[in-house]
Amino acid sequence: MNGILAELERIFYPRGVVVVGASNREENFGRLFLDGFIQLGFEKLYVVHPTEKEVLGIKAYPHMMEISDEVDLAVVVSPLETVPQVVAECTEKGVKGVVIFTAGFGEKGSEGRKLEQEVVGIARQGDTRIIGPNCMGIYCPSSKLSNFPFVPKESGPVGMISHSGSLCNIVTMAAAAQGIRFSKVVSCGNECDLNAVDFLEYLGQDPETKIIIAYLEAIKGGRRFCQLAREISKEKPLIVWKGGTTERGARAAASHTGALGGSYQIWRAAFAQTGIISAHSTEEMLDYLQAFYYLSLPEGRRVAIISGPGGPAVATSDACIESGMELAELSEHTKRRIAELIPPVGTSIDNPIDLGMGSAFNPRWYVESIRALGEDKEVDILLVIGGSWLSNFVEMVLEAVKEVDKPAAFATIPAVMRGMEQSLPTSGLAIYPDGRRAAMALGKLVEYQRFRSSA
Amino acid sequence: MNGILAELERIFYPRGVVVVGASNREENFGRLFLDGFIQLGFEKLYVVHPTEKEVLGIKAYPHMMEISDEVDLAVVVSPLETVPQVVAECTEKGVKGVVIFTAGFGEKGSEGRKLEQEVVGIARQGDTRIIGPNCMGIYCPSSKLSNFPFVPKESGPVGMISHSGSLCNIVTMAAAAQGIRFSKVVSCGNECDLNAVDFLEYLGQDPETKIIIAYLEAIKGGRRFCQLAREISKEKPLIVWKGGTTERGARAAASHTGALGGSYQIWRAAFAQTGIISAHSTEEMLDYLQAFYYLSLPEGRRVAIISGPGGPAVATSDACIESGMELAELSEHTKRRIAELIPPVGTSIDNPIDLGMGSAFNPRWYVESIRALGEDKEVDILLVIGGSWLSNFVEMVLEAVKEVDKPAAFATIPAVMRGMEQSLPTSGLAIYPDGRRAAMALGKLVEYQRFRSSA
Repeated sequence: MNGILAELERIFYPRGVVVVGASNREENFGRLFLDGFIQLGFEKLYVVHPTEKEVLGIKAYPHMMEISDEVDLAVVVSPLETVPQVVAECTEKGVKGVVIFTAGFGEKGSEGRKLEQEVVGIARQGDTRIIGPNCMGIYCPSSKLSNFPFVPKESGPVGMISHSGSLCNIVTMAAAAQGIRFSKVVSCGNECDLNAVDFLEYLGQDPETKIIIAYLEAIKGGRRFCQLAREISKEKPLIVWKGGTTERGARAAASHTGALGGSYQIWRAAFAQTGIISAHSTEEMLDYLQAFYYLSLPEGRRVAIISGPGGPAVATSDACIESGMELAELSEHTKRRIAELIPPVGTSIDNPIDLGMGSAFNPRWYVESIRALGEDKEVDILLVIGGSWLSNFVEMVLEAVKEVDKPAAFATIPAVMRGMEQSLPTSGLAIYPDGRRAAMALGKLVEYQRFRSSA
Repeated sequence: MNGILAELERIFYPRGVVVVGASNREENFGRLFLDGFIQLGFEKLYVVHPTEKEVLGIKAYPHMMEISDEVDLAVVVSPLETVPQVVAECTEKGVKGVVIFTAGFGEKGSEGRKLEQEVVGIARQGDTRIIGPNCMGIYCPSSKLSNFPFVPKESGPVGMISHSGSLCNIVTMAAAAQGIRFSKVVSCGNECDLNAVDFLEYLGQDPETKIIIAYLEAIKGGRRFCQLAREISKEKPLIVWKGGTTERGARAAASHTGALGGSYQIWRAAFAQTGIISAHSTEEMLDYLQAFYYLSLPEGRRVAIISGPGGPAVATSDACIESGMELAELSEHTKRRIAELIPPVGTSIDNPIDLGMGSAFNPRWYVESIRALGEDKEVDILLVIGGSWLSNFVEMVLEAVKEVDKPAAFATIPAVMRGMEQSLPTSGLAIYPDGRRAAMALGKLVEYQRFRSSA
């Protein structure tokens, strides 16, 4: 492990954590951080505050140096003007990483950038590294670090890097609702010292992390980023949502984290060469993540579509082709198997398979067709579209989808979603509310698999 | 009203309806149709069936001619081989419109196409017109016509034409969950006689219909379609989702409704010239419909974005610009009003307005900012992004959104959606689960407004 990776390891797995500026006021963000650490069960917790004696049951010290135990991570929420002094105390105490939540630095202009330089200068006098300022810090369930209350306690294989602190929480919580769990989530903020590329390098070699997602506005060290991304993508899917792709969006990014973005055309070219999977919204990022999380990589790009409703079958065929797949030519054996199940009219045994309206009453038609396609050597990927008011429909169909030994996604029908929602599982399957979104996500698996096999 | 419009009027407002082939078997689709009519309260209902005496309390006749009352609409679910004879009886009886649900016609090849011609030939001997075959027929709440059980009884301003019967139900039900109501929904099927262009002409002049949506695979009479679309778009937004845009998708469409699609490039050009709003999935169609249903048209394309989370503010700015809007330059007065509300750091009073993390605890910051932007003459459109665990947050923010005298959409944050869902209203507002989707929908309002003002 090289210098920076060793430094980050100590920050991700600290012996003690101090929250500087946590108070008993309800809207105090230090208190929220503290609450998060307590909920995850981090034990060696301390508070530094000029007047408080205790916050949420944690003893508060007026000064850092009065804490006798080792403290490797500090989270600083104290006012802007106090930050240089706090960082000086952290450096003196030997703190390895200081998360500066406090805002009002580089994103506010040249005065703030000077203050950032001052703070880094102070930290450089010791072994202290800065995360932020203007950030939410680190969520790492395996070491019980929290960036907010309500995050899941369980660890998982997803690493996340973000230039938006809010998106760390939004994405973590929304993904958690789909059963997805995280290894490390890092909000980088203004990156006056440690930056997204440093964290990318760390997550690239982190054995706990198998998939990396990132919301990035601007990159410090584009060349190193591309080299790393290309290397890491060979092993781990890297999904990047780039904010500030337009000139005006980039201007907004500058007042968000004080960084300048560079042309999106350059980014796009970089994405293509490095195997990065590109997303354009929270929704797309979560859709793609779900596919990489729950599905294996396909052996080829031949998709089979099974649908009850005919219109979605047609339109999802378009979406699959636009997403880089091709429609599988089914084997005669498969067609015969399916033909034996369903009526000869109002249906189609050619791909996309249209099971007809009767399928809403006959989940067995789905189950048997899914099995047949699962066994067909001409099919690499399965996309199942359906829905029903029948109470056992979802359970039966999803059980069959789960047993398929190929990437297989399920798209629900919005009309019956409300009734189905209770029976939809919250984890274990890639489930989408629309055939087109399922197609786009499966297309990303194909795109990534092609990168891997050519890299 | 010209010939075809008068014919359609009699079909949409029939004096009596007969369901041919409805039986007491639970999976019989005629029974489902009948159930739908009963639920909507259509009274002059009849059943024709060779053996049944009564279905769902409705008297069944062995032959059409035994019904003494006037019957203007027939829904036929009887087996393929009986259809010519049924149509002959309908023609003899003077039925104006025959919906043929039965499948196995043109979509199955040349034999089926011959059968379609035979059926049309029989109908031509009288005043009878055919809808379908292979279709779900008509939903028209103002005349109590139903195409399926569970559809809302209340009428509304949306007309729908679809080459997919399932999508009629899927879209109707999903839109209904958002408080959207329909005037007429028509599933056209194989269009052996009446086709989508005929129905488009009817909906164009129908006073009940203010917005038209369509799922179309192939068009019979492309030139007439374009002329009508262009004329109608000047008055009523026309949202079209085209299925079969790829060669393979078009092949699937051919086995779905037996029609051939034509190149998507031609379609795209036609869309641009006719003011058609183009959608690519159920989700997009519903997203755009929501905007046209609940919002007024903007006076210009200058959008103001208000967000709590910073990342979504930046990324949604990109999405707005990509969707054809520009970011409004806010007046100094507005900026001052907002600056007085929020902390000076961790926020931005430049568009996109970043209210900072504290806004989750301070819905009043949203409310006051929304008011300020609502009154700013530099702003044509508002996009509000936010969410909170606070129970009164949604209510307060949405109340303010509703009072704005400009098109204003709200985008929730997925992470907190689950908790917020109960408090989200099901109607009256354009609400999206993602900033990008809100931006795309608002962009369609701008696109349409530009067409209208240039047409």
